[in-house]
Amino acid sequence: MTNYRDYQSIRKICVVGCGTIGASWCAWFLSRGFFVRAFDVNAGQSVVLRAYLLHAWPSLQQISAGCGTVDDALARLSFSTELEDAVSGADFVQENLPEKLELKQEVLRRLDAYLSADVVIASSTSGIRATLLQATMAVGARRLVVGHPFNPPHLIPLVEVVGGDATDRAAVDWALGFYSFIGKVAVHVRKEIDGHLATRLQMALWREAVHLIETGVASVADVDASVVHGPGLRWAVIGPALSFHLAGGPSGLAQQLAHFGPSVQRWWDDLGAPRLTDALADQLVRGVDEEIGDRSFEQLVAERDTALLDVIKVRYADAKAHVHAESPGIQQ
Amino acid sequence: MTNYRDYQSIRKICVVGCGTIGASWCAWFLSRGFFVRAFDVNAGQSVVLRAYLLHAWPSLQQISAGCGTVDDALARLSFSTELEDAVSGADFVQENLPEKLELKQEVLRRLDAYLSADVVIASSTSGIRATLLQATMAVGARRLVVGHPFNPPHLIPLVEVVGGDATDRAAVDWALGFYSFIGKVAVHVRKEIDGHLATRLQMALWREAVHLIETGVASVADVDASVVHGPGLRWAVIGPALSFHLAGGPSGLAQQLAHFGPSVQRWWDDLGAPRLTDALADQLVRGVDEEIGDRSFEQLVAERDTALLDVIKVRYADAKAHVHAESPGIQQ
Repeated sequence: MTNYRDYQSIRKICVVGCGTIGASWCAWFLSRGFFVRAFDVNAGQSVVLRAYLLHAWPSLQQISAGCGTVDDALARLSFSTELEDAVSGADFVQENLPEKLELKQEVLRRLDAYLSADVVIASSTSGIRATLLQATMAVGARRLVVGHPFNPPHLIPLVEVVGGDATDRAAVDWALGFYSFIGKVAVHVRKEIDGHLATRLQMALWREAVHLIETGVASVADVDASVVHGPGLRWAVIGPALSFHLAGGPSGLAQQLAHFGPSVQRWWDDLGAPRLTDALADQLVRGVDEEIGDRSFEQLVAERDTALLDVIKVRYADAKAHVHAESPGIQQ
Repeated sequence: MTNYRDYQSIRKICVVGCGTIGASWCAWFLSRGFFVRAFDVNAGQSVVLRAYLLHAWPSLQQISAGCGTVDDALARLSFSTELEDAVSGADFVQENLPEKLELKQEVLRRLDAYLSADVVIASSTSGIRATLLQATMAVGARRLVVGHPFNPPHLIPLVEVVGGDATDRAAVDWALGFYSFIGKVAVHVRKEIDGHLATRLQMALWREAVHLIETGVASVADVDASVVHGPGLRWAVIGPALSFHLAGGPSGLAQQLAHFGPSVQRWWDDLGAPRLTDALADQLVRGVDEEIGDRSFEQLVAERDTALLDVIKVRYADAKAHVHAESPGIQQ
């Protein structure tokens, strides 16, 4: 059984692949005080990455008071187009290459060869199972986990951690603990399953939303509003199970299930199962166009990001400041 | 076609049934400056209602700066155990009796006889269709709508408005407009369907959550965390359709559906359909107990309410102050 590195000793993180997810991870790691070594085969991504960080930093400063200036952060960032060079001396690796199995397998095989056996490698993949990713790795396959962030990782706390067949349970536990240590909320997905938790739950909600739209029960705008101004508010602070439990009064979920179990089953059985035909897709697109009205795409993105940051600030700013103060990285 | 009352002329609202939902509605109407006449057959509810208002008011003051003192509000509240007396002179009625069809039908029939034809009656019912509620009403059935709040109505903006077979479209439109006018977010449910929008969407999410727990993919705590620290944050600010649209980049939802449509369909087809057996109920209860640990019920409720109020404050305080300034009720 491998002993993975002590969290307190982690100084340098290698981010492999600097697209949107990789760049956002860089921002988060830098905000936590780590040295970040970014790898991308495309030298031009260095400029894109820098621009991303300049754009992201004001948001990070709002949710993470101790994260310092962007100049301090950039001084801890370096970039390389050579994998072996980029990963040299890394204490942790977060891989964010395009979702191509053979590409990822090849890079992971090489990473495995370059890295000390006590360094955990996490892949941000949303669609490829850890068991496939680790197939070309040698004994180091045991330290490969999926660490799937919710986009964008520098703002949203959730990271889903999944091991493959060859992964050490110790590596999974290390990754769960490390993400928590650096201020993320890590959950353990115990079986490899498409969409992990969050995507599946989103797809379940979206399916019923589409059913309600398709059957003319409500407009796209009203379905969206019914989430945002109702259950969405609650889901930002409490999950579905605990929410049910508290709704049951002091006798809790047991009472709720005994009392409402049959209704819940009837509701479940009554949910829709739409087929995503071209006609339905057209209906959805028209409905979104009506919802949007004359607001521009840029305006909508800005509205979403401002509102999201407001909620994240009120929910996490204190907690993150606390984690931050304990983070070893920042003390350098 | 009846012309319903001008919003600017609404002064007095009758709240029928002062359980938790009725009391919460009283709080909201009072915070908007209306005179509220509360009815309950049980005289003791007068004391319960007053206690509820004293408890709710500090929260209302945080999200609605101009709502005044609780003493001002209580001066605008009166209580009666006589329906005809309570409803006399009302400009709008919100009914919140227990979910018993015959009881509601009888009270609505009497309300209809007492009230001027241009007064809309809304029922907070979550489970009884408007078409059934209005079955015993005479010509006034046309002004009966369901106006279903998301609990608690004094904090959560969503109200789902549904008409029955005999309801005027004008009454539905009036209710949609009136709820918006007083600072709620009203959505139009165009067909009578169990669970309207929000409950169905919650049930869809809950079904997949239960499936993931039942099949051992994740603990109850981790499923809850995967909502709260991921998609829940987003759902507090943007609905599922608009969120997909923006994720598609400038070419939007059409591009998303063209590109990811087949994956979405695969995800939908892969979602679970658990049966809520006793064994599964036990598993859920044990999982919630683990999630809770040694936190007391009261502590959990307090944590939820504080966090929920924080999010509502940041999302709605400005908007509500704005609505408030335009509300006629408050100017009295």
